[in-house]
Amino acid sequence: MSDLLVHVTRGSIVESRHHGDIAVVNGEGKLLWSLGDPERVTYARSAAKPMQALPLVESGAADAFDMTDAEIALCCASHSGEEMHVERVSALLARLGFTDADLQCGVHAPYRSQAYEQLLRTGSPVTAIHNNCSGKHAGMLAMAKFLGADPAGYLDLNHPVQQRILAVVSELCEVPVADIAVGVDGCGVPVFGVPLARLAMAYARFARPVGVSSERAEAMSRITQAMMRYPELVAGTDRFCTTLMGAYPGHLLGKTGAEGVYCVGLVDHGVGLCVKVDDGNSRASEPSVVETLLQTGLVPADVIERLQAAHHPATKNHQGTLVGRLEPIFQLVKSSDGA
Amino acid sequence: MSDLLVHVTRGSIVESRHHGDIAVVNGEGKLLWSLGDPERVTYARSAAKPMQALPLVESGAADAFDMTDAEIALCCASHSGEEMHVERVSALLARLGFTDADLQCGVHAPYRSQAYEQLLRTGSPVTAIHNNCSGKHAGMLAMAKFLGADPAGYLDLNHPVQQRILAVVSELCEVPVADIAVGVDGCGVPVFGVPLARLAMAYARFARPVGVSSERAEAMSRITQAMMRYPELVAGTDRFCTTLMGAYPGHLLGKTGAEGVYCVGLVDHGVGLCVKVDDGNSRASEPSVVETLLQTGLVPADVIERLQAAHHPATKNHQGTLVGRLEPIFQLVKSSDGA
Repeated sequence: MSDLLVHVTRGSIVESRHHGDIAVVNGEGKLLWSLGDPERVTYARSAAKPMQALPLVESGAADAFDMTDAEIALCCASHSGEEMHVERVSALLARLGFTDADLQCGVHAPYRSQAYEQLLRTGSPVTAIHNNCSGKHAGMLAMAKFLGADPAGYLDLNHPVQQRILAVVSELCEVPVADIAVGVDGCGVPVFGVPLARLAMAYARFARPVGVSSERAEAMSRITQAMMRYPELVAGTDRFCTTLMGAYPGHLLGKTGAEGVYCVGLVDHGVGLCVKVDDGNSRASEPSVVETLLQTGLVPADVIERLQAAHHPATKNHQGTLVGRLEPIFQLVKSSDGA
Repeated sequence: MSDLLVHVTRGSIVESRHHGDIAVVNGEGKLLWSLGDPERVTYARSAAKPMQALPLVESGAADAFDMTDAEIALCCASHSGEEMHVERVSALLARLGFTDADLQCGVHAPYRSQAYEQLLRTGSPVTAIHNNCSGKHAGMLAMAKFLGADPAGYLDLNHPVQQRILAVVSELCEVPVADIAVGVDGCGVPVFGVPLARLAMAYARFARPVGVSSERAEAMSRITQAMMRYPELVAGTDRFCTTLMGAYPGHLLGKTGAEGVYCVGLVDHGVGLCVKVDDGNSRASEPSVVETLLQTGLVPADVIERLQAAHHPATKNHQGTLVGRLEPIFQLVKSSDGA
């Protein structure tokens, strides 16, 4: 049963409320703190991207194609379709011998409205490369090529690329393949449903690999370092992932997923956390992540300070006047066998 | 305490959930059906627009300025900024002797993306007239002019226009002015917080005026008829208000409000309903409205049939493939002293 996460205030009243669930665990999966139901099964959505990139890195495919850390960060990105993203994904595709026509993620307008407006003003086309998942799809094409598998079929759960990803999700989350709920993501690839605490455990392991082979540990660290080194490529200008990782460089790995999922790996502690907003709205996951970091005491106070705008977001009207706020109002429960 | 409204499914699991509250009442305020807490206080947001337009019509201001029913519909609109909206609001402003510079609603991109894209492609400016509330603000300027009040101060709660609106809200909802929560809306005007059941009662009265003077009844009927006659002006292409009123022309008055508020007046029965989604997401209010209409049995089956796409909305990915659905899952409670 989800618990109250965030109040949305306007004037003198609470106008709306968000409920959700939170799990904070270590790399062995031990629950440290929680809210609501830490065992709630939810799709990782785009928070699965570091796991989806792992076969690419640990197989040697990334090295075989001379992929840079910036490109690996883009393979884990839900990017805003800005020039910095589009240029790099285009270059990677070209180097792999693919074009935007090979991407099967579909087309949507760039998340960053200024980027979209610029395209329209200049009469430039919106392509699959502007899709926030284009880097992930480029990585899947690279993996298909490396495996000698048909690149046209990479969306299919039975394709070797997706089977390798499914195995990684199963191993990192320690959930048998048969128990993983499978759906289809907004970009057409399979999505994987696992308990929140298991997703948090996977992030704890990306932060500090434990319980995995040394080869896998190395590949996981490379992904984590790449994402933390290029937070602007993982998301974009004025995006929470970029702000979060930029507030404590090299110490925090953060990744959003659709429908109110957010995962963080804390490098210094080998701890992972996962927030799921029951109603799927990310406006509540972001303040909840910062509040969780505050309550666990696992990051210095000045980091929380730098995240203040995301911690208590202001609601402004179209004149720019402050009319309300989002306020996290939960109290994490410390696990009796935890910390 | 809110109750479960809608399941958001994807693949085999329920990915997200929306809670909320519903009140169905008659024009005397008798509760007929409910879900959760029908006495929950919430801001009406844009669902207040018919009430905000009432002083304009009943004072004689609308007639003094030769306002058409289309223009009255636009005064009650949260429009999509399409050509049909922008041209009419521009013409009304010009006739009143105002320009877009007099509108204090602020500027935002047209709700309809195609309308916005067209502006960008042609290098045309986005102005306050594209703001979804521009008709309401034009109406407030008309009222200020009619009253001989300063048009520059019309956003202020103490301005004669807002004081008349506050009195109307108090009278139609039968809530003393002192008990009405006041905040600021996204477009800068005061918003009024009243219990859901009282907001539903106001809509029951717009559908079939009772408990009001014959002059007020006439003005209310004129507003209701104007909105039902021009559903495309009240919202726009592919918008729920337009679809709902178009599915049963002349029988249903429907108006959305921000943060998951939706109000309906049923002309044939003199009944009003109000849905508030706890988390503020309108994706859940729309199926809940159709489900409420179905469960009350107050509209013919073929109307529900025509609203099927809004009743069980499909979630499609960027390739257009069906990946999930929104499913209303509540059961209204029939009031013991009701119907």
